[in-house]
Amino acid sequence: MDDSVFADRVMDVPPSFIREILKVALNHEIISFAGGLPNRQLFPVEEIKAATQKVLDNQGRDVLQYSNSEGYIELRNLISQRYLAKKNLNIPAANILITNGSQQGLDLLGKTMLNDGDALVIEEPGYLGAIQAFSMYKPSFKTVTVNDEGMDVNRLKRVMSTCKPKLLYSVPNFQNPSGISYSEENRRAVAETLEGTATFLIEDDPYGDLRYTGKPINSFKSYLPDNTIMLGSFSKIVAPGIRVGWIVAPDALMDKLIIAKQASDLNSSFFTQCIVYQYWKDNDIEKHISRIRDVYGKQSKAMLDSIDEFFPRQITHTTPEGGMFLWASLPDNISSRDLLELAIKDKVVFVPGDTFYVKNDRLNSMRLNFSCVDEKTIWDGIERLSKAIKKLL
Amino acid sequence: MDDSVFADRVMDVPPSFIREILKVALNHEIISFAGGLPNRQLFPVEEIKAATQKVLDNQGRDVLQYSNSEGYIELRNLISQRYLAKKNLNIPAANILITNGSQQGLDLLGKTMLNDGDALVIEEPGYLGAIQAFSMYKPSFKTVTVNDEGMDVNRLKRVMSTCKPKLLYSVPNFQNPSGISYSEENRRAVAETLEGTATFLIEDDPYGDLRYTGKPINSFKSYLPDNTIMLGSFSKIVAPGIRVGWIVAPDALMDKLIIAKQASDLNSSFFTQCIVYQYWKDNDIEKHISRIRDVYGKQSKAMLDSIDEFFPRQITHTTPEGGMFLWASLPDNISSRDLLELAIKDKVVFVPGDTFYVKNDRLNSMRLNFSCVDEKTIWDGIERLSKAIKKLL
Repeated sequence: MDDSVFADRVMDVPPSFIREILKVALNHEIISFAGGLPNRQLFPVEEIKAATQKVLDNQGRDVLQYSNSEGYIELRNLISQRYLAKKNLNIPAANILITNGSQQGLDLLGKTMLNDGDALVIEEPGYLGAIQAFSMYKPSFKTVTVNDEGMDVNRLKRVMSTCKPKLLYSVPNFQNPSGISYSEENRRAVAETLEGTATFLIEDDPYGDLRYTGKPINSFKSYLPDNTIMLGSFSKIVAPGIRVGWIVAPDALMDKLIIAKQASDLNSSFFTQCIVYQYWKDNDIEKHISRIRDVYGKQSKAMLDSIDEFFPRQITHTTPEGGMFLWASLPDNISSRDLLELAIKDKVVFVPGDTFYVKNDRLNSMRLNFSCVDEKTIWDGIERLSKAIKKLL
Repeated sequence: MDDSVFADRVMDVPPSFIREILKVALNHEIISFAGGLPNRQLFPVEEIKAATQKVLDNQGRDVLQYSNSEGYIELRNLISQRYLAKKNLNIPAANILITNGSQQGLDLLGKTMLNDGDALVIEEPGYLGAIQAFSMYKPSFKTVTVNDEGMDVNRLKRVMSTCKPKLLYSVPNFQNPSGISYSEENRRAVAETLEGTATFLIEDDPYGDLRYTGKPINSFKSYLPDNTIMLGSFSKIVAPGIRVGWIVAPDALMDKLIIAKQASDLNSSFFTQCIVYQYWKDNDIEKHISRIRDVYGKQSKAMLDSIDEFFPRQITHTTPEGGMFLWASLPDNISSRDLLELAIKDKVVFVPGDTFYVKNDRLNSMRLNFSCVDEKTIWDGIERLSKAIKKLL
């Protein structure tokens, strides 16, 4: 098949290096810090089963039919109520659109807002799924470094002085891949920089509920109310296989997003939306989330403690207060891809950090996942990894 | 919000007139031929429930996790086997990608293949969802009329002589909205016209299994094997609320479609894919489909018979051999929108035909749905409609 049959937008996307690593990780002798998945042991299987039976008993014919593109109103009401209860945010259900996980939220925002060449600010390192979703709409990516405090505001100001970005994409809580969170001061500074401009800030918050230490910080919605779009998901607090997430967007944008949603797949499964709703109604979701926090919190601590114990002092790392990932950096001149080769021999894998850069020029860092590995295995894996590091240094 | 924040692609899409009609149809006194839905009375609710329980009992943690972007291999194997058994087509599972209904298939094909301004041949009248999905990728629509035999081949040849279309979109069996099917001769002629060109033919076949009279005709895949892309769906033969459909595509295109699928929503729900698979394994799906055929077949006949009985002779109509729709035309100078106004007063509704044209210049036709209305109600509704027609003529 001649390449000219394809659209330009799909020609530049490289094969996913993560996929390759995950294939290696299928070997059961390998300890994998490469994953990006929630821990399947924590899925509420029995509760989902009970919810599913109830849904099919009470409204089987309804849930198996086509439904509206906005999503199930009762589920959107619960999401709205939780924003008020948890974050003191007033988000009407009319401003909530149900999506197939927040990945579809990214796609619909790209589809609705990005023309070829439109500027889009993205974190560096940044979430790969977002880079992939937005790439399809051929924006001009403007990268802004994130550090332990959040976004580099000086760099952001320089970007904003040279172009008018349509969107700024951020994961302010326990970012994937770095595990960092934006401080309150940093959020205020980012919001001030965007204030009065036409740039919309996307706050993607899949991990926000998974805080293990420190204090919650307000959503960007509090600092930049008119120009913040929020993405949420049940993937990390219930289960990803049901594919239910949502977008919070202003009225005018909602109208366009609904059209884009119709064009994309008519509607998200009413069946799975009703299952999530029923699960939520019949169970204490906050208690379930707190159980996930307990487990991941211990695993996060095990990773920090074992790094402290085993890693050479030259290795710096972030100290995540939540989420699923930690970010470690080797000395500048050392490549984490070289480390990965050695690490595979020692039966431990991770994702090299350059994977998370739009331009792969930083080669010394790595993403370490702690959600899918138990405490003892984390200690073993970090010990193995430290041996590989010492060989390389 | 300033319109400049939106992408150009979402600015031209008009609000759906069908939505407005469906609102009117919510009134229980109204007989609606406006719907486009399968009949909910035929959904296999109990069987789906049993399948769901089994899936959660046997592989609960697996099905609730993220999964691969191509889709569940066992389900793709069954689809592959059915192509061989039913149509004598050899379609390896590796060439089948699972989508959220075939609507997402349309979106992914647009995303993967269409650059701005690329020519795309579409039936006139044509399926609205396809027009909507493709519109997002800003192609140049080239319309070719369909009639009782299929596509107007002379018109198609003229189009092919003036441009090089990337895609030709067709619903050759019991088309939505017209109910017509392409004859074998017409399929050969269309295939011959495309033979040796770079144009891919999309055969969208949601209704193919729902034939009530006449004999099955080969898929375009038989006549144009290398350049046919097929779309399939469980929406009309099991239930649409589970949102499971598929694309059949050549190898090189599959690679790109998988990237587009990842970017769009990572993967379709593994949970619902496994439910469909389990339902199919544990039940006689062919028997179920034959039950749907019985019911719709009778309703189709009731509509044809009642039209024969009540409609004035000036009204022409198609004689569908399957599917869910019939197409009727008023004399040239009479607008079906005017008829709709009168019909609403007589408590019956339909969708005016101009809705299904890229350019709304044909005003005398209408789409009548028979899948959601029982035989007696069809007789009543057609009688009411004929009264409205007589008032107008």
